[in-house]
Amino acid sequence: MTIRIAVDAMGGDNGPAVIVEGALAGARTQRATLLLVGNVAEIRTALSRLDTAGVDVEVVEATDVVAMDDHPAQAVRRKPQSSINVALRLIAEGRADAVVSAGNSGAVMAASLLVLGRVKGIERPAIASYIPTIKGKTLLLDLGAVTDPKPSNLVQFAEMGQVYVERILNVRNPTIGLLSNGEEPTKGNALVQQVHPLLAAEDDLNFVGNVEGKDVVMGTVDIVVTDGFTGNVALKTAEGVATFLMELMREEITATLPRKLAAYMLRPAFRSMRSKLDYAEIGGAPLLGVNGAVIIAHGRSSARAIESALSVGVRAAQFDLAGGIAERIARETTIPTDVAAKTTTIA
Amino acid sequence: MTIRIAVDAMGGDNGPAVIVEGALAGARTQRATLLLVGNVAEIRTALSRLDTAGVDVEVVEATDVVAMDDHPAQAVRRKPQSSINVALRLIAEGRADAVVSAGNSGAVMAASLLVLGRVKGIERPAIASYIPTIKGKTLLLDLGAVTDPKPSNLVQFAEMGQVYVERILNVRNPTIGLLSNGEEPTKGNALVQQVHPLLAAEDDLNFVGNVEGKDVVMGTVDIVVTDGFTGNVALKTAEGVATFLMELMREEITATLPRKLAAYMLRPAFRSMRSKLDYAEIGGAPLLGVNGAVIIAHGRSSARAIESALSVGVRAAQFDLAGGIAERIARETTIPTDVAAKTTTIA
Repeated sequence: MTIRIAVDAMGGDNGPAVIVEGALAGARTQRATLLLVGNVAEIRTALSRLDTAGVDVEVVEATDVVAMDDHPAQAVRRKPQSSINVALRLIAEGRADAVVSAGNSGAVMAASLLVLGRVKGIERPAIASYIPTIKGKTLLLDLGAVTDPKPSNLVQFAEMGQVYVERILNVRNPTIGLLSNGEEPTKGNALVQQVHPLLAAEDDLNFVGNVEGKDVVMGTVDIVVTDGFTGNVALKTAEGVATFLMELMREEITATLPRKLAAYMLRPAFRSMRSKLDYAEIGGAPLLGVNGAVIIAHGRSSARAIESALSVGVRAAQFDLAGGIAERIARETTIPTDVAAKTTTIA
Repeated sequence: MTIRIAVDAMGGDNGPAVIVEGALAGARTQRATLLLVGNVAEIRTALSRLDTAGVDVEVVEATDVVAMDDHPAQAVRRKPQSSINVALRLIAEGRADAVVSAGNSGAVMAASLLVLGRVKGIERPAIASYIPTIKGKTLLLDLGAVTDPKPSNLVQFAEMGQVYVERILNVRNPTIGLLSNGEEPTKGNALVQQVHPLLAAEDDLNFVGNVEGKDVVMGTVDIVVTDGFTGNVALKTAEGVATFLMELMREEITATLPRKLAAYMLRPAFRSMRSKLDYAEIGGAPLLGVNGAVIIAHGRSSARAIESALSVGVRAAQFDLAGGIAERIARETTIPTDVAAKTTTIA
């Protein structure tokens, strides 16, 4: 079955040309059908500069755009014809299997909740992303969907993360850590101290305890669970340090002529290093817990990042992530979720 | 005036020998008097292997030790003869001007509150540290003293950070950012949304608004204020990424013989890079808001890190950091602090 990916061509800081270029490359690599959603004239102009041979591309008109500084929830309600709303309706109407957007992430989430709705039993969706680590990849969630979650939300984040890593990476019984300011079970802010016993009480989660900031990039566990505020800060700090270090290295190795010559010989090493660090290679962040495969790409996404986000979208659709999460949560919710959470606290 | 630094020789994961080595080097560089506090036999053994010529060293006996896994507050009360308590009493008794400890940071804080007490008007102390950035240094606080602060605590963290940067770095009117999940004033968790208007209302703080995780290492502002949970996660994430990248680089540049040869030529570049990233060069983190100069060094501190922490201790004592904070807070507390905070909220 060919996967049909709808791409919000108007989202992102770099304009439709970059999105269209990346989406086309991604559709070609993934052998997916591409639905480009947005201003038809702008999309056609972008397409006219590219080689579309061999790719099944359709342009879907959307007459409005949610801006990066729009209030997310208000904008998606007031702009029903915005590219993100139109793209998501393609999933709801059965015309697309996944949506990729580099737009205002709050708006993507609000529109997803409005158009697709939450998976039954899920209290709050979460944004998840792979982080490059020494040992491979770690899934970090939430990255900003819920800045002040309830303890039971984080238990569901762990469950959704588990489904993602099991289905997409085929890792059985992935290890789960709770992000904290120390490894000891007594460490943590009030939220972490409430969540720790809840996670420890879940028999079907491979919870290994608290982990620290360094563990996010050390590959200590398969999944790191945290609130959306802390997760966002950790991700952006990691991106910042990576940028800083590559910049520092560039300065140092070009400081003198002999260094420049040696650096020239090391080009393959640097290229390989950059690719291991490049968040563009890691791709988009799936919005877990909504009824559909929705992939949020970075606002500053390059064409390469959009291409990578498409591959995440294809896999999310192929492996029926939303269906997997629904099954996983149904197992938990034979009694209502918040009652279950309370029971575990007492136990 | 010669500054007298008391060093908790028993604190840290690497044992007294490493601490003593670094402390001796620091005292020599800083021309400070050194008081080594702990097990006399172990300290003397460590000293016997080192050249102490030209350094004024005194060994002060402490018969107990707070372990890294001890409960901080309980341990400092139950072990009055622990090295950290004895070291801090040297400040209280006027025998030392600053204390450096690489021990259990919770215990250092609890002991500091017990032995030295808080600066008048300060609600909660904060742990602050310089972070290496593209543009120089940024002071990040709190790093773990207060995991669930009240909004008014963060305003005081900003004020204490301001005093630190003004006195020690001689930066006038340093810029202050509030760590958040987005730059817009509407972004943030509940705490950040409460703190933002309080900071904005303070005329004598150069508050520039919310900053993101990347800004911690980009040098966007002089001071980044956050709660101790998030600050700890951000710092340890940054350290983890730096370690990861240096490891990745080492692997890449030694992968083949030609790369090894080129890398050999680039040794000065790598050495310079490492020194700019090395958290050991940045040194210890002052505990701001207690009545005395207390410097918390990393538990895994190398001798070089302890040496650097001593230089932070000397400056904290020389520039009378605690006195500066007391003056700064006295300006604010002509009306009680929490009333002042409430007034600003309404305004």
